Amino acid sequence: MTGLLIKGGTVVGPQGAIPGDVLVVGEKISAIFMPGDGPVEGDFETLDATGKYVIPGGVDAHTHMELPFGGTFASDTFDTGTRAAAFGGTTTIIDFAVQRTGEVVQDGLAAWHAKAAGECHVDYAFHQILGGVDDESLKAMDQLVTDEGITSFKLFMAYPGVFYSDDGQILRAMQKARDNGAMIMMHAENGPAIDVLVKQALERGETDPLYHGLTRPEALEAEATSRAIWLASVAADCPLYIVHLSASKALEQVAAARDLGRNVFAETCPQYLYLTLEDQLGADGFEGAKWVCSTPLRSKHEPHRADLWKGLRSNDLSVVSTDHCPFCFKDQKELGIGDFSKIPNGIGSVEHRVDLLYQGVVDGKLSLARWVETIATTPARMFGLYPRKGIVAPGSDADIVLYDPSARTRISVETHHMNMDHSAWEGYEIAGKVDTVISRGTVIVSGDAYHGRKGHGQFLRRGLSDYLL
Amino acid sequence: MTGLLIKGGTVVGPQGAIPGDVLVVGEKISAIFMPGDGPVEGDFETLDATGKYVIPGGVDAHTHMELPFGGTFASDTFDTGTRAAAFGGTTTIIDFAVQRTGEVVQDGLAAWHAKAAGECHVDYAFHQILGGVDDESLKAMDQLVTDEGITSFKLFMAYPGVFYSDDGQILRAMQKARDNGAMIMMHAENGPAIDVLVKQALERGETDPLYHGLTRPEALEAEATSRAIWLASVAADCPLYIVHLSASKALEQVAAARDLGRNVFAETCPQYLYLTLEDQLGADGFEGAKWVCSTPLRSKHEPHRADLWKGLRSNDLSVVSTDHCPFCFKDQKELGIGDFSKIPNGIGSVEHRVDLLYQGVVDGKLSLARWVETIATTPARMFGLYPRKGIVAPGSDADIVLYDPSARTRISVETHHMNMDHSAWEGYEIAGKVDTVISRGTVIVSGDAYHGRKGHGQFLRRGLSDYLL
Amino acid sequence: MTGLLIKGGTVVGPQGAIPGDVLVVGEKISAIFMPGDGPVEGDFETLDATGKYVIPGGVDAHTHMELPFGGTFASDTFDTGTRAAAFGGTTTIIDFAVQRTGEVVQDGLAAWHAKAAGECHVDYAFHQILGGVDDESLKAMDQLVTDEGITSFKLFMAYPGVFYSDDGQILRAMQKARDNGAMIMMHAENGPAIDVLVKQALERGETDPLYHGLTRPEALEAEATSRAIWLASVAADCPLYIVHLSASKALEQVAAARDLGRNVFAETCPQYLYLTLEDQLGADGFEGAKWVCSTPLRSKHEPHRADLWKGLRSNDLSVVSTDHCPFCFKDQKELGIGDFSKIPNGIGSVEHRVDLLYQGVVDGKLSLARWVETIATTPARMFGLYPRKGIVAPGSDADIVLYDPSARTRISVETHHMNMDHSAWEGYEIAGKVDTVISRGTVIVSGDAYHGRKGHGQFLRRGLSDYLL
Amino acid sequence: MTGLLIKGGTVVGPQGAIPGDVLVVGEKISAIFMPGDGPVEGDFETLDATGKYVIPGGVDAHTHMELPFGGTFASDTFDTGTRAAAFGGTTTIIDFAVQRTGEVVQDGLAAWHAKAAGECHVDYAFHQILGGVDDESLKAMDQLVTDEGITSFKLFMAYPGVFYSDDGQILRAMQKARDNGAMIMMHAENGPAIDVLVKQALERGETDPLYHGLTRPEALEAEATSRAIWLASVAADCPLYIVHLSASKALEQVAAARDLGRNVFAETCPQYLYLTLEDQLGADGFEGAKWVCSTPLRSKHEPHRADLWKGLRSNDLSVVSTDHCPFCFKDQKELGIGDFSKIPNGIGSVEHRVDLLYQGVVDGKLSLARWVETIATTPARMFGLYPRKGIVAPGSDADIVLYDPSARTRISVETHHMNMDHSAWEGYEIAGKVDTVISRGTVIVSGDAYHGRKGHGQFLRRGLSDYLL
Repeated sequence: MTGLLIKGGTVVGPQGAIPGDVLVVGEKISAIFMPGDGPVEGDFETLDATGKYVIPGGVDAHTHMELPFGGTFASDTFDTGTRAAAFGGTTTIIDFAVQRTGEVVQDGLAAWHAKAAGECHVDYAFHQILGGVDDESLKAMDQLVTDEGITSFKLFMAYPGVFYSDDGQILRAMQKARDNGAMIMMHAENGPAIDVLVKQALERGETDPLYHGLTRPEALEAEATSRAIWLASVAADCPLYIVHLSASKALEQVAAARDLGRNVFAETCPQYLYLTLEDQLGADGFEGAKWVCSTPLRSKHEPHRADLWKGLRSNDLSVVSTDHCPFCFKDQKELGIGDFSKIPNGIGSVEHRVDLLYQGVVDGKLSLARWVETIATTPARMFGLYPRKGIVAPGSDADIVLYDPSARTRISVETHHMNMDHSAWEGYEIAGKVDTVISRGTVIVSGDAYHGRKGHGQFLRRGLSDYLL
Repeated sequence: MTGLLIKGGTVVGPQGAIPGDVLVVGEKISAIFMPGDGPVEGDFETLDATGKYVIPGGVDAHTHMELPFGGTFASDTFDTGTRAAAFGGTTTIIDFAVQRTGEVVQDGLAAWHAKAAGECHVDYAFHQILGGVDDESLKAMDQLVTDEGITSFKLFMAYPGVFYSDDGQILRAMQKARDNGAMIMMHAENGPAIDVLVKQALERGETDPLYHGLTRPEALEAEATSRAIWLASVAADCPLYIVHLSASKALEQVAAARDLGRNVFAETCPQYLYLTLEDQLGADGFEGAKWVCSTPLRSKHEPHRADLWKGLRSNDLSVVSTDHCPFCFKDQKELGIGDFSKIPNGIGSVEHRVDLLYQGVVDGKLSLARWVETIATTPARMFGLYPRKGIVAPGSDADIVLYDPSARTRISVETHHMNMDHSAWEGYEIAGKVDTVISRGTVIVSGDAYHGRKGHGQFLRRGLSDYLL
Repeated sequence: MTGLLIKGGTVVGPQGAIPGDVLVVGEKISAIFMPGDGPVEGDFETLDATGKYVIPGGVDAHTHMELPFGGTFASDTFDTGTRAAAFGGTTTIIDFAVQRTGEVVQDGLAAWHAKAAGECHVDYAFHQILGGVDDESLKAMDQLVTDEGITSFKLFMAYPGVFYSDDGQILRAMQKARDNGAMIMMHAENGPAIDVLVKQALERGETDPLYHGLTRPEALEAEATSRAIWLASVAADCPLYIVHLSASKALEQVAAARDLGRNVFAETCPQYLYLTLEDQLGADGFEGAKWVCSTPLRSKHEPHRADLWKGLRSNDLSVVSTDHCPFCFKDQKELGIGDFSKIPNGIGSVEHRVDLLYQGVVDGKLSLARWVETIATTPARMFGLYPRKGIVAPGSDADIVLYDPSARTRISVETHHMNMDHSAWEGYEIAGKVDTVISRGTVIVSGDAYHGRKGHGQFLRRGLSDYLL
Repeated sequence: MTGLLIKGGTVVGPQGAIPGDVLVVGEKISAIFMPGDGPVEGDFETLDATGKYVIPGGVDAHTHMELPFGGTFASDTFDTGTRAAAFGGTTTIIDFAVQRTGEVVQDGLAAWHAKAAGECHVDYAFHQILGGVDDESLKAMDQLVTDEGITSFKLFMAYPGVFYSDDGQILRAMQKARDNGAMIMMHAENGPAIDVLVKQALERGETDPLYHGLTRPEALEAEATSRAIWLASVAADCPLYIVHLSASKALEQVAAARDLGRNVFAETCPQYLYLTLEDQLGADGFEGAKWVCSTPLRSKHEPHRADLWKGLRSNDLSVVSTDHCPFCFKDQKELGIGDFSKIPNGIGSVEHRVDLLYQGVVDGKLSLARWVETIATTPARMFGLYPRKGIVAPGSDADIVLYDPSARTRISVETHHMNMDHSAWEGYEIAGKVDTVISRGTVIVSGDAYHGRKGHGQFLRRGLSDYLL
């Protein structure tokens, strides 16, 4: 039987960083050996991992390929987006199938399958957005859990008239999730209040991208986060996962719930760890539109970034996803010239998450183990893909990245593979580099060379979370 | 080369529970295989682990073999105590070398080496108790870290006149630890205040064992815990580890510090998870003396036990140790008839920790991963023994327990191996059983049969903690 | 000039309990004398207050005379309700004028003036309920503050489709209040979530009054309280007053905001201090309907009542109002037989508040000063009636109660003066009694005799709150 | 009978600001009249208070006249100090009688009586410092409460070897206070830890006054505050009063206890509200010695000052005292040249407290009512002098200040009356001025003229606190 021996590296996972040789046979990891105890080299193709970290392929639990938003579509298709992900060391994405108000949930799911099937370069799964909680969609939740491998459902406290659920709808969906074991994911911003602030700002002539941030204050993220946690308690402690948490006071709400032993979790995204309201969103002229996303970037004069890193260390933040939702500047972001509320919301980072978080290791903000946990292990466990994904362990899918801590990564629109005409991270340099990417036993990235192909990626039916307390 | 193949089991660790076959060669784990991918059975001696959990040998980070206390000695020697530990699935202990006031630190350490050398059935390491912080003992801290593999130092806020350090001494030791990378361990009870309460109780004729608990109220543990945390902050966030945390409000202090991203940790012990002030310490007559330990058992009418389990889930409590400090009832505990303050403090549990915590898994209070983390992985990481100990991973010491979830354990003085004339756990039944125990590649326990020997256990020089945030 | 000399009593107010003789001339308090220093008795009519407390007439800041609710009307008119108030030592009420969705605010106010004019036995003022926040009603807020002496506006987070405002509407009203100096009063319960629970309960056949309480859990009051506080912060710290706070966790939200120095206030009501979900709302059969009110009575197994008394002591609860909203059992409460959601919400206590809170003094739960502050001084200050009302001070209206701590009050439908066919307080005995009631210089109650008259009470135009931090 | 009519002013107290005419007869307030309702002017001497606030004379609950400290004595005698107090509108001081370790409590008290008798210009009372808690001094506490009118006892967690009590001693004193109704006052700084930091700083050559502050970090004040609160809880909630609270985190401890309804109180001092570590203590050369006091001034880069003002508003800080402990620069402060630890600790402000706090009213940080409460009413209530002192009410001592909000006060060593060769407040200007000061019916200050005399002031035997929750 043919296989691949990854030799001389340091395997990193929740168990820490431990030297070991990894044998891949077919699509699976067959064995891990004490250095030197593995099979004779000649028996297998060998990858020299000396000086490199051998980590599970990244799991990005929050992407939006081809998402329709504000009259346009996110600019990455499943083809371009998953290829970029592969370059960045991410070998699994979980994208969001969309039900809008008035639509049948299963129709939304079917549409997403249609977009993705045969297009993906790495494995993929779906969460389901519920845009209209009613008797029918509640029934659909059961069906998706049982039959479709969709075990997580996203609700919105923002965007009234689009995705917004009121608190009664949220409560009903939470009760359903508590019963069928699914996870509720929450976009926690108080939409009705934000819409008032947005309207008032525009009436005052405050139309620049910066006002996107100023009309979504921290208090309205913290409030919604708190409210979601209260509602989950009324639903007999339905598991709750706060998406794209950006602000200190929102984190306080999550931390307080976790101190009580509640099944409350949160993710943050690279943009909230590095970028700010003033330096990016407030860039001159309309430039800031590149960084319009919701929740918004926060002020550098407040301790948000330091607090988020701290939350990653203490596991009050469990996951780092990208909320990858790319839009080109030209023709897309530009829709909002003169009216920030018309700027499509989103930043594209699916290619850079693994690198950006490794920078945290270099900066002394994260341990190696937490790096891998937050980008791979925990999202896999959180969303029922574990131990198939998220770990370098015998029996797991051979989704493996060789990460080179001695090389460097420079991010630029010139070199990235996402379908965007700019980069939110232009000029960022990271001390570390994705060296080799293996997806289900196949080397798809090697240095700067791409060996993967569209259609290699398979749909993953997910089980229930095994991360609950 | 000869070896041992553990086949058909489920390997449990911080990475969760994943089926795998484990190959042991010599004293080390050589490889872990996807089930069935390992070597042909005939090549190695094979242990059938079907239906069993394959876990790292337990690491008990808090034992007191032969500790002199109140005019007598803890009744387990390193021989009897480590043999009992082995029976209970614990393959590493960290005992406390003692410096009393007025003694030279290194002399205390040498005395401990003398007691343990050649006596142990499993591997062992030492923390150092500092009973008298002064210029000389501060210098000794450096020497122990650098030369002796002793990287943690325990101080007492209780026991004035015996082990007590005042806040100035504590601060100085913390500053030293911050500089040399060591961990400060703290017995956090306000001794001077407790001594007042004890004296008053005795003057009122309250001499029964119950009053041991009533004169050590939760508030005085919470206070000392809080104070230790404040002092560590003044020492530039010296790492701090609270031993034998027993009470809800003490846990609140630790949780609050951890929410701030501080390097503050705590252990609890099995007795605080199961036993209570009323039911055990308040037993009729002098019977309660069996459960006199400090910190004391807490009231069942308050949420201590539930909160401690919650803390284990959320990692506000990181470790479960035993604080194993056994005394016989006859002649030892009896020293305190008529005066609870003369009862030697301690409970013997070194044999039962792995089982008692597994009961938490059965009861739905802990995940399998957290079970192993709290009894093995985290203590090994916390105290610089990782990944040599605390994990089933290639390259680690082959300290392995096969744990049988379908068998049962019944605890009794009739069957235990500790040198005690009673059991604090008499009659406890656990749904689970230590089946096989391997220490550095040698099977030392198999079912009820003992194959180990005195002197097998080696002294472990420890490194610095790799568990810091 | 004629006058009235109140001699020999102890004047109680925020300054404490200080012996003094009070001279009333006309409608005003003319002077307070050191005991014995006042005018010669013959010059004035004299009331002997020896052994009695001389307190300001009670200010009940939350009543609902003739409120339309659920197809019926609160059973007290301004005539019967204010006469009962007078008997109970309350000489000022602040009732709620109602704007329902779709109505013009000023029309609602005019309707309330029409109900009250010429009917009242004691002075009265109005808050304005906003049932439909829009551009027009926001403008009306300014007009009411400026022209009508209405300086507080009540919003509802409960009762969707009736009084409910969404978070955008709440934010706009708060911004307006911040600008014109008004106070926002909030019914803080999450109505949309409660409506789900109510519907589900009824579908399960849970129709008894007890389910009124069980479908309005503490979490949904705490959540809404928290949310209101967050929204007020977004509105630049608009002053906020939480009405009828009933539960420990809601109180925690208020206390936390007050620790931050925020202008957040709360009232509770006598029913939450004494009555419980189990003993009253859960009474046999349909009897519990007598105690159906929102927020509901809370469980006696939780520390709500003790916490509320504590809140009154610490001023985290600033005011005790009644939320007087009486309905007869026959024909009114009975509308909800077989469906608790149709039971008119309300309890009648306007006559008993002063007594019920004095019982707290007797029980050692409140000081004399806090008794008077919570029932008179603070509501007067909070709502811009001070120092005309709420204090026994020279220049203030001569609204004075002589309270006899050596007499007793027994509450019963047989003896009360409210227009109700039952009493929520049947059989309650208080160690203390309203002895004499003076309204603007006129003795209207003397022992059990009534000397007042319909029409004596005048409408009070209120100023802005002078209680802000 | 002769008297004094204060006409046309606004009487300010806990009840707010209410116009009224005040009649003084002999040493007492005889009556308060509605403006114009008082006696015909000719009958009495009349003071025109038009445009002025009529407030109770200030009560400074924390002074140290002639305190021996560090080999010298506080530079104000009871003569000079109380005369300066009078100029500043303070008509009562509570000074601290001192028992040092080894002394008999009653001897310390007698010594203080000897210093003060016949020397004071305004009334005075004593707290008792306990420098050595033992059986004898515990008995003395009872005797002082019963026989001497001394109902508050101060302990020190700082100054080991001088005033320091260990936690056992503190607990015993608290138990005694709980039993006899006294108040425990606490200097809350962790002395043993501070002494380590001081020694280390001096060894590093850090000898300037600034290091006085840097070696007394906020954490060690917060810790001690927290510890005192825990100990008071063990003593069955003995009332506790934290003196000279200076730091945000210490305030947090007090606020948390008060949220729980505990009898925990705190004072701050004017220096913590205005002055800072950097601007004063860190002044060039040895200049900073003027501001060496303990607790120390805090950093302007942290929110201490804003938090303290907030605490005064919310009553988490109940009292403003001066901790008046003046030392001249020459020969006294200079003792610490080259060694900050030898600088006598103290700032002199007894003359300026009323003015400095009125500045808070002008700045919108305090209401008029809170101004008077914090400087007069609450200290009088807290320490058992009420309603004799602290309130303008009939029957109270005629200790009255006419305060002119339209005049200005400029502080300077050139004009102050304290026996100091410098002012900690040099150049401060306040919008407001003490116009007239009346002590027990006698005008002792009128504009800049002094009419008082040594010996006018009387010793006040105090009752128990009437401020407990």
